[in-house]
Amino acid sequence: MMTSKSTGMPAKGLPIVRNWLPGMLVCAALVLSPAHAEVPGDARNLEVAQQGSLPALLGSAGLSSRPRVPAMFDGDEFIEIIQRDEGLETRPTGYAPETAEPDVEFTIDLSEGQVPIGQGVVYDGFVTNGSIPGPTLRVTEGDVVRINVKNSGSVMHGASIHAAYTQTSKHVGMIMPGETKSVTFRATTPGVYMYHCAPGGHAIPMHVMFGQYGMIVVEPKEKKYKLEEDLGRGPDLKLYMIQHELYASGKEATEADFLYSMWNGGLFRYVEEPIMVEPGDYVRVYFLNVGPNRLSTFHLVGIIWDYVYWQGHPEAMMPGGQTVTAGPSDSWVIEFRIPPEEGAYTMVDHTLAHSNRGSIGLLVAEKGAETPDVVLAEGPQYSESELADKLANARRTITPFGIPDEDTNPTPAKADRPVKFGDDVDEVVIEIKGNSYWPKVVEVAPGTDITFVNEEVFTYGEGETSGYHNAVAIEGPTGFATDLLAHAESETVTLTEPGVYDYICTPHPYMRGRIIVREP
Amino acid sequence: MMTSKSTGMPAKGLPIVRNWLPGMLVCAALVLSPAHAEVPGDARNLEVAQQGSLPALLGSAGLSSRPRVPAMFDGDEFIEIIQRDEGLETRPTGYAPETAEPDVEFTIDLSEGQVPIGQGVVYDGFVTNGSIPGPTLRVTEGDVVRINVKNSGSVMHGASIHAAYTQTSKHVGMIMPGETKSVTFRATTPGVYMYHCAPGGHAIPMHVMFGQYGMIVVEPKEKKYKLEEDLGRGPDLKLYMIQHELYASGKEATEADFLYSMWNGGLFRYVEEPIMVEPGDYVRVYFLNVGPNRLSTFHLVGIIWDYVYWQGHPEAMMPGGQTVTAGPSDSWVIEFRIPPEEGAYTMVDHTLAHSNRGSIGLLVAEKGAETPDVVLAEGPQYSESELADKLANARRTITPFGIPDEDTNPTPAKADRPVKFGDDVDEVVIEIKGNSYWPKVVEVAPGTDITFVNEEVFTYGEGETSGYHNAVAIEGPTGFATDLLAHAESETVTLTEPGVYDYICTPHPYMRGRIIVREP
Amino acid sequence: MMTSKSTGMPAKGLPIVRNWLPGMLVCAALVLSPAHAEVPGDARNLEVAQQGSLPALLGSAGLSSRPRVPAMFDGDEFIEIIQRDEGLETRPTGYAPETAEPDVEFTIDLSEGQVPIGQGVVYDGFVTNGSIPGPTLRVTEGDVVRINVKNSGSVMHGASIHAAYTQTSKHVGMIMPGETKSVTFRATTPGVYMYHCAPGGHAIPMHVMFGQYGMIVVEPKEKKYKLEEDLGRGPDLKLYMIQHELYASGKEATEADFLYSMWNGGLFRYVEEPIMVEPGDYVRVYFLNVGPNRLSTFHLVGIIWDYVYWQGHPEAMMPGGQTVTAGPSDSWVIEFRIPPEEGAYTMVDHTLAHSNRGSIGLLVAEKGAETPDVVLAEGPQYSESELADKLANARRTITPFGIPDEDTNPTPAKADRPVKFGDDVDEVVIEIKGNSYWPKVVEVAPGTDITFVNEEVFTYGEGETSGYHNAVAIEGPTGFATDLLAHAESETVTLTEPGVYDYICTPHPYMRGRIIVREP
Repeated sequence: MMTSKSTGMPAKGLPIVRNWLPGMLVCAALVLSPAHAEVPGDARNLEVAQQGSLPALLGSAGLSSRPRVPAMFDGDEFIEIIQRDEGLETRPTGYAPETAEPDVEFTIDLSEGQVPIGQGVVYDGFVTNGSIPGPTLRVTEGDVVRINVKNSGSVMHGASIHAAYTQTSKHVGMIMPGETKSVTFRATTPGVYMYHCAPGGHAIPMHVMFGQYGMIVVEPKEKKYKLEEDLGRGPDLKLYMIQHELYASGKEATEADFLYSMWNGGLFRYVEEPIMVEPGDYVRVYFLNVGPNRLSTFHLVGIIWDYVYWQGHPEAMMPGGQTVTAGPSDSWVIEFRIPPEEGAYTMVDHTLAHSNRGSIGLLVAEKGAETPDVVLAEGPQYSESELADKLANARRTITPFGIPDEDTNPTPAKADRPVKFGDDVDEVVIEIKGNSYWPKVVEVAPGTDITFVNEEVFTYGEGETSGYHNAVAIEGPTGFATDLLAHAESETVTLTEPGVYDYICTPHPYMRGRIIVREP
Repeated sequence: MMTSKSTGMPAKGLPIVRNWLPGMLVCAALVLSPAHAEVPGDARNLEVAQQGSLPALLGSAGLSSRPRVPAMFDGDEFIEIIQRDEGLETRPTGYAPETAEPDVEFTIDLSEGQVPIGQGVVYDGFVTNGSIPGPTLRVTEGDVVRINVKNSGSVMHGASIHAAYTQTSKHVGMIMPGETKSVTFRATTPGVYMYHCAPGGHAIPMHVMFGQYGMIVVEPKEKKYKLEEDLGRGPDLKLYMIQHELYASGKEATEADFLYSMWNGGLFRYVEEPIMVEPGDYVRVYFLNVGPNRLSTFHLVGIIWDYVYWQGHPEAMMPGGQTVTAGPSDSWVIEFRIPPEEGAYTMVDHTLAHSNRGSIGLLVAEKGAETPDVVLAEGPQYSESELADKLANARRTITPFGIPDEDTNPTPAKADRPVKFGDDVDEVVIEIKGNSYWPKVVEVAPGTDITFVNEEVFTYGEGETSGYHNAVAIEGPTGFATDLLAHAESETVTLTEPGVYDYICTPHPYMRGRIIVREP
Repeated sequence: MMTSKSTGMPAKGLPIVRNWLPGMLVCAALVLSPAHAEVPGDARNLEVAQQGSLPALLGSAGLSSRPRVPAMFDGDEFIEIIQRDEGLETRPTGYAPETAEPDVEFTIDLSEGQVPIGQGVVYDGFVTNGSIPGPTLRVTEGDVVRINVKNSGSVMHGASIHAAYTQTSKHVGMIMPGETKSVTFRATTPGVYMYHCAPGGHAIPMHVMFGQYGMIVVEPKEKKYKLEEDLGRGPDLKLYMIQHELYASGKEATEADFLYSMWNGGLFRYVEEPIMVEPGDYVRVYFLNVGPNRLSTFHLVGIIWDYVYWQGHPEAMMPGGQTVTAGPSDSWVIEFRIPPEEGAYTMVDHTLAHSNRGSIGLLVAEKGAETPDVVLAEGPQYSESELADKLANARRTITPFGIPDEDTNPTPAKADRPVKFGDDVDEVVIEIKGNSYWPKVVEVAPGTDITFVNEEVFTYGEGETSGYHNAVAIEGPTGFATDLLAHAESETVTLTEPGVYDYICTPHPYMRGRIIVREP
C-alpha cells in the first residue's frame, strides 16, 4: 500500500516565465520548454560566402602593441558590425561562418563511463573521449577552429568552448544521443581556456560537476611570453595542468563538499609518475582550475615564478610570486626555470585540504634527464585490459547519482553508506539535490512517512536540462510515484510492506535511490 | 521545574579589554561597552569653515596620468595633512566637512522585512529601502557625496560605505530606531564598491549576512575605460550586477554553508526576465560580489572579455579572459561587445554550486531589440498587491534567526525542520551561532538535559552589537533563563514538564528557539 | 574478546610507485619509503668554493627596470646555468653554496605545544618558537640568507621557505627530533612569503593545518613601493599581518570546516589591543593569508587603498581598491594613508564568516598617538606565569588529533563531544582523516561492529610522512589492533566487554580515540 500527499503542482502547471520570447529558445543554452528541444536546421542557414583565402587575411595589422586578427567578413551578413571594429585596437569578433575552411579541427566524444582515478578508486560519471579530463586542444591565435561534438552516450550532452568569442550555444547545445554537432570560430584571444559539456539549463552544472571538461589553449601568434623573449627560445617543458575535484554525490557537489582533488585525472598522479626535468630547464605551466567549485593556489616548493600571465594572456603579465590563486574556470600561464641544484621540486595546491586529497605532484630535476616536451592535461590512458583490471579491483566506486555495485565498492564513501532509522522515527526526509537522492539508501520501519523534498532550484523546462524531479519505484513489493516536484515542493510516501524498493527519477533515469522497509 | 548549571560568568564580569582608551569608543565602529552607546554630539562639532565654492576647487590639476581631485581644506583643521599630500600623484583624502554642500545626496532606509526571492521562496531578514540588495548609488569621481542613513527598523542599524576614503564609522555607526545620521565625503577613487549595514561589532557581519547591502559606483571623471576610448562612445548597456548568497540560518551563515546564490535579488532573475541586446552592442558590467562568504567567477558563454578592470579602477586594466574571480566585497568592471550572431549569451557563476543555486541569467541578442541603457543592481520592486500575493503563496519562508510561520512554510529548509531526539538521549546540545539557535526546534523526553553553548566568538559589549547570548523562555509550562554566555560558555537547562517552550535571546529578541517536551 | 575483519592489505604490501627512481628519494620532500629517512651527509658535499666578497657582487647591473642580483658562481658547479642567464632581465637563481657567508641568519625552532588564542581558548598543536604563527623573518633583496631549522619536538619536522628560488627540500626536509638542519639561499625576488613546516609527504599539509607557519619578507633593494616614492620617505607603520584559521579536528581541517579565524595568533587580537596611529600616517601592510584553506578579503572601514602590490612585488602594482582577495599562501603589500579625521578604522576580513570568527581588529587614529614603527606577524608572547594562568583557566582546549583534558575543556568544541549510539545501532563507522579519528569518542552497546575507514588519500610511505593509519588499543578491558590501512580500506572491530578503550595510531602516536562500551 502506498499513500501520497503532495505540496507540488502537477507537471503541467509549470511556472510562467515572464518576458520570454519563444523564438529565443531556439538559440538558448537554457532550454525552458520541451517544445523547443529540436533545433530547426534553417536557423543556421546563414547567408555567408565561402572564404577563399583565409590565411591571407591573417597577420600583423601593423599596430604596435597587439597582433591583430581581422575577422572574416567577405559577403558576411555581419559585415557592418565587423567593419565598425576593424580599425580598432580591440580584437574583432571570433565569428566565423560555418562554411569556413578550418585551420584546425577536433572531434570530442561525450558519453558516460567509468574511469579509475588512482588509490583503488573508480569514478562513474560523465566522460570526454572516455576520460576525465578530456583531450587538450591546442590552437594558435588567429586559427579558424572547428570542433565537432559527438554524443556517444545515452543522455543529452553539448558543449561550451570558452576560447570562442562568438555564439556557440545554438550550434553545440542540446546534442541528442547518436548526434554530432559542430561549431566553427576564429581564436581571437590568446589564453588558457576551459571547455565543458553544456547540454542546457540545469544539466550544465550537473555534467561539469560529474566530470565532463577539458582545456583548450590559444597560443599567442606574435606577442611572445616574456621568458621566451628573454631567453630567445621556447620552453623545454610545456606542462598543461588541470586541477579538478570530484564529489561523492550530487548533494555534496552542489554544496562544494568535495571528496577528491587532483591534477589531470589522477590522485597524486605525478607522485606516482614524477615529471623529470634537467636543472636549468625553462618550464611553462598552462594552469587551469576547472573547479567546479573550489579555489586553487598552485605552488612549487623551491620555485618563485619568473612571470605569470592572468588567464594566459601574454599582456596580462606580473613578475614574481609564490602562488597563483585561481577560482573555477580561472587560469594562468606560469613561467620559471628549474634551479641549478638537483632534487625534487614538489607541486602543491597550497589550499592544503586539496593537496591532502590528491593534488600533490613532483617535478624532479636530474642531470641528463630526458625532459618531455609536453605533458598534456588529460586523464590517464589505459589499455582495455588495464582498465578491466582496475575496475574489477576497485576498493571504492563513486557514482554521484547512482548506487554503486557492492562488488566494486567494499568501502563505500559516506554518501553511499545506508542510513538506518530507528523504530521511534516516524518521518524521514529524502532531499533531492544535484541530480541525486540524499540519503541514497535508507532503512526504515514499516509505516514511516518518507518525504521527498526537491532542493534543486532550477526547476524550469523538462528532461535532462531541468531540475524537476520525482521518485518512481522500479522494483519492490509495491509501486509508488510522486509528482514532478518544483523547488521547495515535497511529497510524502508511506510504505507499509517490508522489502527493498528501488526507485528512479523519470526525467533523469540514472538517478537511483533505495528504501529498505524492515520487518516490524 | 527548571534547574540550571552554568560555566558562564554573570554579565557584569565582562572580560577586560586591554590598552583600550575609553575616549576611542565614541568613534569606534566596534562598541565594547554599553556606556558608550550614545554618541555625544559635541564629538562631531569640528571647527570647519563653510565651503563657499567647492566646485571651483575641482578639476584637473594638470598632471599627466591621473585626474587629481584636491581636497577641501579652506579653514579646515586638517589643512596640514591635506596640504602635505597636495602636490603628489596620490589622491588627497576623501575627507569633506559635514557642512559641505554636496554634489549628490542619497537617503537609504534600513529596517527589517520580508522579500520574495523567486521560486516561491520568501526571505525574512534585514533590508535596505525594503529590498535586498538596496539601491544602486552612482556618483562621479570628485563629487562631494552625502548619504543619509535612516533607521526605520526596530533594532540598531548603521552604514559602511566602501567608496569613502575617510572616517565614516563615527558618523553613521550605531543608528537607533527612528534616528537618521549622515556622512559626507569626497569620492576620490573610481571603482565599484559595496556599502552595507554596520551598526558596530558583532552586528556588522550579522546584518550583512542577513541581507543589508548594495552597490555604490564612482565613475571615473577624466580617464576613460579603454573600450570607451577605443570605440569613441559610451556603452550601449551598463549592467550593474551584485552577486550575493543567502543562508537558512545564522549557524549556516557563519559556516559559509549557503542555501541560495543570486544576482540582484532574484533566483535565476535574468532567466525569467532575459536582458535584451542587439548584436554588436557595447556592454559594460559593473560586477560586485557581495558574498558575504563565497567566491564568485563570473563568465558569459560565448564571450571573451575585451578588457577588465580590477575593482573597477580604469588604470588597473587587463585584456582578455574568460572569467573574473571575485572574493566577497571584490569587484570588476568588465567590457565586451555582443558578437554579430543572434542568440542567447548565458551568464553564469562558473563556481557551479552557485549557478546551480540561482546565479544563472541570460543576455539575449536579437536584431532590433531595445537594449536598456541601464540595469541596476537592486532587488526586484513589487507593488503592494504583488508583494502580498507572493508572501501569502510562499512555498518556503526563510528567517535565519526566527521560526517561520507554518502557513508560509509548508516545505521548510533543513534548518527549520524540527529535530526529534529519542528516549535514550539524555543530553541535547543547542549551539548559539550567527544570532540563531541550532537546532531551532527540538523535541525531547521530559528530564533531558538541554545544554546551550555559545559558539559566537565576538563576546564583547552588549545588545545588538554583541555576541553575548542567553536563552530566556517567553512561553511554556514553566519559565527558564540562562545567564548571558560568553564564547565557549555553556549552561544546562532541564525541563520536566511536557509542553511547548518558546524562548528568545534578550539582547537580540528576534532570535527564537523552541523546545517541545513530549509526554513521558 | 575482539574480532577483526579487514579489507586492507598488510603494511608490507605497499603499492608500487611507478617510474620512481630510488635515488630521488634522498632529495624528495615526499618520502615514499622509510629506507630513505636518513639523508646521507655526502649528498650535500657540493664542490663549491668559499665566497670571498659576496657583497661586492651585489648592486645594480645597470638595467633599467629591475635591480639585478647576480648569483654566486665563482667555482660553482652550476656555473653554466647561471652564466647562461647572467645577461638577462630575469633574475638569476636563488642558489647559494652552503658554505656562503650569510648576510642574515635565523634559527627557527619547531615543536609541539599549547598556545592561548584568546577568548578562553587554548590550541594544542604544532608550534614555531613556541608560538602560532612563528617569528617574522625580514631580509633585503640580494641578501644571502641562512635559516637553521631546529627540531625540539617529539616527531619529525622540516621547513619550506617560499622566499627561496632554489632547492630547499633536501636541505631542510625530514628533520628528526633533536636535529638541526640549515638552508642557505640568495633572496632574489621582493615579496611577502610564507614559510611553514614541511617534514615531507602527508605531514606537510598536516603540520601546517595544525599551526606551523610564519612570514618571511624580502624588502625590495632599489625599486621603491610607489607611495614611498611619492611621499619621499618610508612608512610610519609597517604592519605585518598573517591571517590564519584553526580547526577543531583533523577531519574538519581536511574539509575546510574551520572553527576560528584570526590575525597574528589571537582572536580579535587588535580589538583587545588596538593599533594606535596618527591622522595622516603612511601605513604599509604586509598581508599574508596563510589559510591553510580559506580565502580572505582584507578590508579597512574608511580606507581606499592608495596602491597594492600582488604578492608584495613592487612592479606588480595596482591603484585603488577596497579589498584584496588572497587565497592560501597568497599575499599583498598594501599602502594607504590614515585620513585626517580621528577615529577607529576597523580592519575586517570581508569574508564575514571569518571576521565573525575572530578576524576583526582596530587601527585607531588619534592626534599625538605614538605610532609603532612595526607590528610583527607573530603570535602573542606570554611570560611563563601568564601562560600557566591562561592554560589553567581555559574554557576550551582544542587538540585536533588528541583528546583534550576535561579540566581545561569544560565546553568542548563539537568535535570533542562524545557521540552516543543507541542500542538499535549495530554498526558504527569511525573515519580516519587529517590524522584524527572521527568521532573521537563514541559510546556503544556491547557487540556493536566498529568499522575504521581510512579516508586519508596520501597512503604512501610510512611514519609521520604517511597517511597510512591503524587503530591500536593502549588501554581498556581487552586489546585490539587493526592492520595499517591504505585509502578506502577498512577494518571492523567488535568489542563485547564493557569499559573504556583508548587507542592510538602507531605511526602517529599523538592520534587518540576512545570507545566506551556500556553495560548491556
